[in-house]
Amino acid sequence: MSLVERVLTGDRLSLARLLTAIESGDEAGENALDELYPYTGNAHLVGVTGSTGTGKSTLVNQLTRHLRQVGLQESAGAEPRPLKVGIVAVDPTSPFTGGAILGDRIRMRDLAGDPEVFIRSMATRGALGGLAERTRPVVQALDAAGFDLILIETVGAGQSEVEIARTAHTTIVVDAPGLGDEVQAIKAGILEIADILVLNKADLPGAERAFASLQAALRLGGPPDQEGAWSVPLIQTVATEGDGVPTLAEALARHHGYLTRTGERERRERSRVEAQLDQMLRQRLKEHFLEGQPDGRYQQVVERVLARQISPQQAIVELMEGLP
Amino acid sequence: MSLVERVLTGDRLSLARLLTAIESGDEAGENALDELYPYTGNAHLVGVTGSTGTGKSTLVNQLTRHLRQVGLQESAGAEPRPLKVGIVAVDPTSPFTGGAILGDRIRMRDLAGDPEVFIRSMATRGALGGLAERTRPVVQALDAAGFDLILIETVGAGQSEVEIARTAHTTIVVDAPGLGDEVQAIKAGILEIADILVLNKADLPGAERAFASLQAALRLGGPPDQEGAWSVPLIQTVATEGDGVPTLAEALARHHGYLTRTGERERRERSRVEAQLDQMLRQRLKEHFLEGQPDGRYQQVVERVLARQISPQQAIVELMEGLP
Repeated sequence: MSLVERVLTGDRLSLARLLTAIESGDEAGENALDELYPYTGNAHLVGVTGSTGTGKSTLVNQLTRHLRQVGLQESAGAEPRPLKVGIVAVDPTSPFTGGAILGDRIRMRDLAGDPEVFIRSMATRGALGGLAERTRPVVQALDAAGFDLILIETVGAGQSEVEIARTAHTTIVVDAPGLGDEVQAIKAGILEIADILVLNKADLPGAERAFASLQAALRLGGPPDQEGAWSVPLIQTVATEGDGVPTLAEALARHHGYLTRTGERERRERSRVEAQLDQMLRQRLKEHFLEGQPDGRYQQVVERVLARQISPQQAIVELMEGLP
Repeated sequence: MSLVERVLTGDRLSLARLLTAIESGDEAGENALDELYPYTGNAHLVGVTGSTGTGKSTLVNQLTRHLRQVGLQESAGAEPRPLKVGIVAVDPTSPFTGGAILGDRIRMRDLAGDPEVFIRSMATRGALGGLAERTRPVVQALDAAGFDLILIETVGAGQSEVEIARTAHTTIVVDAPGLGDEVQAIKAGILEIADILVLNKADLPGAERAFASLQAALRLGGPPDQEGAWSVPLIQTVATEGDGVPTLAEALARHHGYLTRTGERERRERSRVEAQLDQMLRQRLKEHFLEGQPDGRYQQVVERVLARQISPQQAIVELMEGLP
């Protein structure tokens, strides 16, 4: 059996090997992704994002336990079904350094013994390519390997983390009381991507005020535009105790139903695939163009722009001239 | 006289008109930029970035007054020379909404009567294209119009704001005491782009602790690698009173000297131009490629990826086939 075939049968060791091949970016990894692609598209992709200090790792941990032990009720009247859960943890990173706060990922260890849970932590330091581009194939591999629900945990700070969350079907935004006014500005943007909003650490002082201000922020977005539209729920949790986690799981199941019923899931898939192809095509076209240029011509044009003999705009016109 | 000629003679009204033409993205604006390009490259571009609440607008205000009234001492022994100052204020914005906090920009009004100061506030709401791409031509126009020093004020939150700051010759990062631990994570990244670090509101409680922690963060970066390298100064200011502003101006003059003396300014220009050309070329190549495709072919390939008949990677290989 090939590595891909073993992954499709659910072999964990083969999956780990495949992910390493994919992350190293070698040809075997790329070919494996091509082979796996037809088997993707079944998993429910759930982004979980929030600032440091919101307790989002603990929430991911407890949500996973719940999904394993109780499961999700996928339609009205149906029995809840325990799910196979994949977790992709993207290290917090600045746009420049790739510095990582690893501490609270350790709390996830108690899931590590479960054969139906697979945890992968993405390295961000010194790696090539955008984080969103590197996360995508890892999620695809877990999807093809048969995980029903994949949690993608990111820090809601940088744009690339937000982009990762955006590639999910459902985005959970986690907040907590007492994080200071500083966060408010960021919040304004991040609320827009929330399908489900969680106020974690709801037992802390200031929780009531935080709840009220989140509620106000949600109301600012206005009522849903049309009947049957999704109305973002605001859920209070105390992740360390597991409080509110069943309610969160229920909201996830409802959002899953909403996505499928309304065709919104297909729309999200479409815009995701279009963005990915666009980005890949630009990259390949640039490479192809440079291969077709006489040695040093592109560099000459750069030099003339630097010498302010021509403007960047004029440089592009000149470079594009004579293209078939 | 053409609009461009009037701008080059320093006519403010013409400059304002030109900026509007540029921001609207019409052809007249683009042509004007081509004409102006040979006259750019003289201004000292200074990025000023920091979180909301650091008092960065007040600092920009006071620094501008100082540069106008006292000026910069551009070489040892020389008399300080008052400078013509351009200010480009980029509204705080989230990656999704473009929401703006305008309040403290009002404080800049007292500069508005000075004919040698030009303030332009960038609209971010509902505008097309990346913020960094749209800020660049505005800065170029001010440069060509003869402003000696251009302050580009951004909020150090999103990646696009950081990119704007990066296009400057000198980046001033502003911090303040008491902004909460939340900011620490961001700080780790933003410190890396600082050429000059300012602790504003240095009269507030907690300033000493903040100063010590910034100093420690700077030391973490280690001593300069080689002799003559730039060592990031940490300057305390109370912008509302003007305290520390002369020291900041002096650091600006020193950094300007450093950039010129070491060739660092040229290196920064080069990487800026290369990045700009790269981005523009990718965009044009994609457009050119699509124009050359039979109607609907690209869309067909997208559909086949969506149906998981081929992987994105295979789609790109197929699209690139047969390109000359």
